[in-house]
Amino acid sequence: MSKRNGTAGYDLRFGSSQRGKLNRITDVPGVCVGHSTIDNGDIQTGVTAVLPAAEGLYERPVFAAAETINGFGKATGLSQINELGEIESPILLTNTMAVGTAHRALVDHLINQHPECRTVNPVVLECNDSVLNDIRKPAIDSSHIGAAMADSTTDFQTGAIGAGRGMVCFGYKGGIGSSSRIIDIGGTIYTIGVLTLTNFGQKSELMITGQHIAPYFENEKEVRQEGSIIVVIGTDLPMEHRQLARLCRRGAFGIARTGGKCGSGSGEFVVAFSTANRHSRNSGMAIQQIHAISEDTECITPVFTATVDCIEEAIIDSLFASRTTSGTGGRVIQGLPVDQLLIDYPDIVRK
Amino acid sequence: MSKRNGTAGYDLRFGSSQRGKLNRITDVPGVCVGHSTIDNGDIQTGVTAVLPAAEGLYERPVFAAAETINGFGKATGLSQINELGEIESPILLTNTMAVGTAHRALVDHLINQHPECRTVNPVVLECNDSVLNDIRKPAIDSSHIGAAMADSTTDFQTGAIGAGRGMVCFGYKGGIGSSSRIIDIGGTIYTIGVLTLTNFGQKSELMITGQHIAPYFENEKEVRQEGSIIVVIGTDLPMEHRQLARLCRRGAFGIARTGGKCGSGSGEFVVAFSTANRHSRNSGMAIQQIHAISEDTECITPVFTATVDCIEEAIIDSLFASRTTSGTGGRVIQGLPVDQLLIDYPDIVRK
Amino acid sequence: MSKRNGTAGYDLRFGSSQRGKLNRITDVPGVCVGHSTIDNGDIQTGVTAVLPAAEGLYERPVFAAAETINGFGKATGLSQINELGEIESPILLTNTMAVGTAHRALVDHLINQHPECRTVNPVVLECNDSVLNDIRKPAIDSSHIGAAMADSTTDFQTGAIGAGRGMVCFGYKGGIGSSSRIIDIGGTIYTIGVLTLTNFGQKSELMITGQHIAPYFENEKEVRQEGSIIVVIGTDLPMEHRQLARLCRRGAFGIARTGGKCGSGSGEFVVAFSTANRHSRNSGMAIQQIHAISEDTECITPVFTATVDCIEEAIIDSLFASRTTSGTGGRVIQGLPVDQLLIDYPDIVRK
Amino acid sequence: MSKRNGTAGYDLRFGSSQRGKLNRITDVPGVCVGHSTIDNGDIQTGVTAVLPAAEGLYERPVFAAAETINGFGKATGLSQINELGEIESPILLTNTMAVGTAHRALVDHLINQHPECRTVNPVVLECNDSVLNDIRKPAIDSSHIGAAMADSTTDFQTGAIGAGRGMVCFGYKGGIGSSSRIIDIGGTIYTIGVLTLTNFGQKSELMITGQHIAPYFENEKEVRQEGSIIVVIGTDLPMEHRQLARLCRRGAFGIARTGGKCGSGSGEFVVAFSTANRHSRNSGMAIQQIHAISEDTECITPVFTATVDCIEEAIIDSLFASRTTSGTGGRVIQGLPVDQLLIDYPDIVRK
Repeated sequence: MSKRNGTAGYDLRFGSSQRGKLNRITDVPGVCVGHSTIDNGDIQTGVTAVLPAAEGLYERPVFAAAETINGFGKATGLSQINELGEIESPILLTNTMAVGTAHRALVDHLINQHPECRTVNPVVLECNDSVLNDIRKPAIDSSHIGAAMADSTTDFQTGAIGAGRGMVCFGYKGGIGSSSRIIDIGGTIYTIGVLTLTNFGQKSELMITGQHIAPYFENEKEVRQEGSIIVVIGTDLPMEHRQLARLCRRGAFGIARTGGKCGSGSGEFVVAFSTANRHSRNSGMAIQQIHAISEDTECITPVFTATVDCIEEAIIDSLFASRTTSGTGGRVIQGLPVDQLLIDYPDIVRK
Repeated sequence: MSKRNGTAGYDLRFGSSQRGKLNRITDVPGVCVGHSTIDNGDIQTGVTAVLPAAEGLYERPVFAAAETINGFGKATGLSQINELGEIESPILLTNTMAVGTAHRALVDHLINQHPECRTVNPVVLECNDSVLNDIRKPAIDSSHIGAAMADSTTDFQTGAIGAGRGMVCFGYKGGIGSSSRIIDIGGTIYTIGVLTLTNFGQKSELMITGQHIAPYFENEKEVRQEGSIIVVIGTDLPMEHRQLARLCRRGAFGIARTGGKCGSGSGEFVVAFSTANRHSRNSGMAIQQIHAISEDTECITPVFTATVDCIEEAIIDSLFASRTTSGTGGRVIQGLPVDQLLIDYPDIVRK
Repeated sequence: MSKRNGTAGYDLRFGSSQRGKLNRITDVPGVCVGHSTIDNGDIQTGVTAVLPAAEGLYERPVFAAAETINGFGKATGLSQINELGEIESPILLTNTMAVGTAHRALVDHLINQHPECRTVNPVVLECNDSVLNDIRKPAIDSSHIGAAMADSTTDFQTGAIGAGRGMVCFGYKGGIGSSSRIIDIGGTIYTIGVLTLTNFGQKSELMITGQHIAPYFENEKEVRQEGSIIVVIGTDLPMEHRQLARLCRRGAFGIARTGGKCGSGSGEFVVAFSTANRHSRNSGMAIQQIHAISEDTECITPVFTATVDCIEEAIIDSLFASRTTSGTGGRVIQGLPVDQLLIDYPDIVRK
Repeated sequence: MSKRNGTAGYDLRFGSSQRGKLNRITDVPGVCVGHSTIDNGDIQTGVTAVLPAAEGLYERPVFAAAETINGFGKATGLSQINELGEIESPILLTNTMAVGTAHRALVDHLINQHPECRTVNPVVLECNDSVLNDIRKPAIDSSHIGAAMADSTTDFQTGAIGAGRGMVCFGYKGGIGSSSRIIDIGGTIYTIGVLTLTNFGQKSELMITGQHIAPYFENEKEVRQEGSIIVVIGTDLPMEHRQLARLCRRGAFGIARTGGKCGSGSGEFVVAFSTANRHSRNSGMAIQQIHAISEDTECITPVFTATVDCIEEAIIDSLFASRTTSGTGGRVIQGLPVDQLLIDYPDIVRK
């Protein structure tokens, strides 16, 4: 199957902040993403692993925060993220029923790597891919979790892949999306990156760079579903837990700009981490030195704005990158007809 | 000064749910709103009172919830709203510095009305109107709070009035906005109403029914500010605290649809109440009977969607209804040029 | 091994409210508890299942709330409990590393029972039993989860059993504890029951009915550990989510009365459910009728007080009921010398 | 009226950590406390001001957090404390009805001091002193707030003074209490200080260093009330917002150790601040350097423990320091008979 480009191939109107090189969360130095995909008839599912650090994550966690927009979801690890302000494990995304499997596999993985490990906080997030995937069959096992982590790279693919394999977004084929922004703070260039797992929204709600696309779809059948969306934000900006929690609370603003209205059954979770300030657990330092961005408005509001833009683009990227996919019950979910759409709605692209 | 009509005069594209009769929060039976406005040179400020019930509010509170989107604000009363799940006082909106004055005046008002009253939880919300109002001068006194409550009616005006007198939204004159939606639940018609106090956003961010208006403004001067927004949601739908809290968390989605991106200095608060289920404090009933909407997706998601639409419209209503206003330091904030805008952006209006 | 009686055999000074018949959480009608225990050399661990309802839990969930006192823990399911205000699965307790296994087993269990099930929210809570249990070995598998649920009964044992098998509390052998209180509300008798999994505290901190026992232990070796405690509260009182959340927030008061001071590494979680108000998911009723206790102080404060008493007793029960246990690394954790203690501290018992 | 000594004159069994020099929150360098008291027949009330910094608080705020244990209270300023993680104003304590007056007076005070000030977040906390004070009369005016701040000193009095003038605790005369602990972290001595405003509990619940005093009181009349408690924690330990929030969550443990069970009508709030890391708002530094204590268990758990001890002692201090007081309606609330009590309960004192 040939790769679709996502939004990176187009200059769309997503705010004024500048994209990073790959327009991926992996533009944040040290961050890698890997997928394991099952494309096998009724089974259309997978695992995506976001690795916040290339090495030493358990010994030197990343600062982090998590926010629940609508808690109809089964995310694990969030309590400890918010108590200690850090993430010590890879972040796994998968389908709703596979959360326990992914949790156990992460435990085993960390036990194997760390002979001294007697506790670990696995972070697993999920959406429900049962429109295309026969979710009642336990297709995901520990090998898929291992494979997703082993596959991790900076130049990863988005679309109907990994945990995104079976997801549906605004009635079209969704899945994994990603985007990034670079920002100059006090003369230093920092990167904010976003990865989304998109599985929410109705056709009639979709907006692309503000434009309601609904009339375009009016003769099409609505795919009724209440999905979910997972947003993972990474940055190398020095931000501590409270600041990252503020970043997470901007998640709703990014989702809303694509037309999402947060239905009752939509599990919407945001996790953010900063790769700055990684301290060793066993440093023996009683008082630690931390760096943190100033919260003067002129300093931090552009960070918030860029994050909202980046989430908006990452969601649209998941639509642009996903091809038509068929799955369980003979269902077929169309990929968004991007080329025709950009002809009919020319204002989506910046001139 | 002649009255401007706000959005009620136009059929704009704000979702598919139907407006209430007045397109005001006061379409919810029993809800009244009153203003007290000071328009006196450097002093451009005021008070707006939302009365959730025409009578007996202290003895029979309304179920309620409050949510903080961005806590850079001085709202009072929210802890008790969320502990007890109810509001027992009028909801006052005013400027940042007048919160204490409004709080004290509400206490005095309730003490006077209720000889037995030994505790009360005043709810006061605020935005900072210092662009147009000389906020350092203590212009608001208890007479203005009393006047706003006495003025309360169902057919209230929106725009640069009451607490909205000095507010600025997307660089244009903002203030009080309102809107309502009616919804059929199990064969009964219920109303959801919203009142907003708008004081946030930059010109370059404004979207009206999804359309970016920025190019329209490109030769205009940006008014730098980090404002705030207060959203008050009322309904006669039977909803308990947790359900109203869920409604509040949709606030960010409504704000985002107008272009707001929740800057660091923007205090964004949402309060929701339901006029159903008013129980007497001293009923002597050990076990109370409550009615609550089902959270089956088909039942409650339309309520969430209508609320998002209603918040979006209420914000735009505050812009449509506000005329050009001058204030402290000789500053003049333009009213949005609505008629010309609708000619230039015809898709804002439904055909 | 002979059964120890726990606190039920003694009239200790835990407040003035009256115990239920069994002094167990299962005094709440419909609630059952089961254990599966592994006592095999280095492996000293297990699973305890709390079933909030004898039948139909998935179709007719119980109202519920969850509260995190100190979030250093790996509990799952809490986000959805607090979003929807209900629990739809058995509540499983086990060791830290087995959370994923228990999660997966619950999913499989519910899928098997419910052909239509396409999403489920498993509730799993844990403490870290690595002082006595070789937690790195994956000893728990799905058979143990099944066995714990199948074992469920009203007359269950407390102490070093089920998930409590390897736990240590105040340096003595802890584990599962339980207690109950009955309360007359408006002429009807209701029951509040508590089950705790205790794994926290230092010998020097222990208080029994207020008495510091520390001097008694001064020649003994301190077992350094930062454990955790899980508190499950059940009741047949009609309480909705917010009220149950208030009940959960009293958890810290119960723990503190035994001497716990909430160390940094202690994961402390409280879950509460009410068996009243069970509504069918597919009732088709758009507006539901709910019963809820009045929050007049005279009505609800006794409920809070009884809950605090009940938590205090359940923790002490786990100590009274647990015998000396040996485990991994040749460690031996003494059972509390109850008989001698009551001779030396006669005021612990009510005269 | 002669001054009573509070707990400082006795070596009571409140944990093992060492007291600071004055056994007051003012042992934290830079912290001052002042009172303004009204003792005038039916009016028995006042204001207490806690100044977290001797100077420059508005320009260089202190890091802070706030936690609500039971939100039946009217505290102001908490939303912004938790959003920005800082306090920029004196912390005022007063009676329930005077919150608005104190809020307005703080605004005026800060406007007068800071010509550039266009926004400020006043922190006001309250308890309800209506047992002894005719709370319906508006006795507190801005002069009392000014006087409390002007009175601020390190060697302040505790007991029935300032905001504590009319408060009742465990049926005895309560009010202002304070205590401190010193702690060695990595070879440096730091101080944790607590100030409480106590107005909660029933006679039958009181515990002093664990001992139930109830039998002592069995022939006395119970004073029915549901009060409240405010806990203010200060430290010079470098702690950021999340860490201070963790400290606040230990507040319930300190309160519980005195017998408090958190009744429904008891407003229980905890505010914590650290005087380390004061940064200038207008430093122009885009990235700031912060120091923070390590959260290794061995480092931070002793801080939590000392804080719990300190809160326990501060509450008991309020009882030991308060003399018998008469007020509105001819009511007389006895001071705790400390000397006799220590004879009858000799184990309260360390040998």
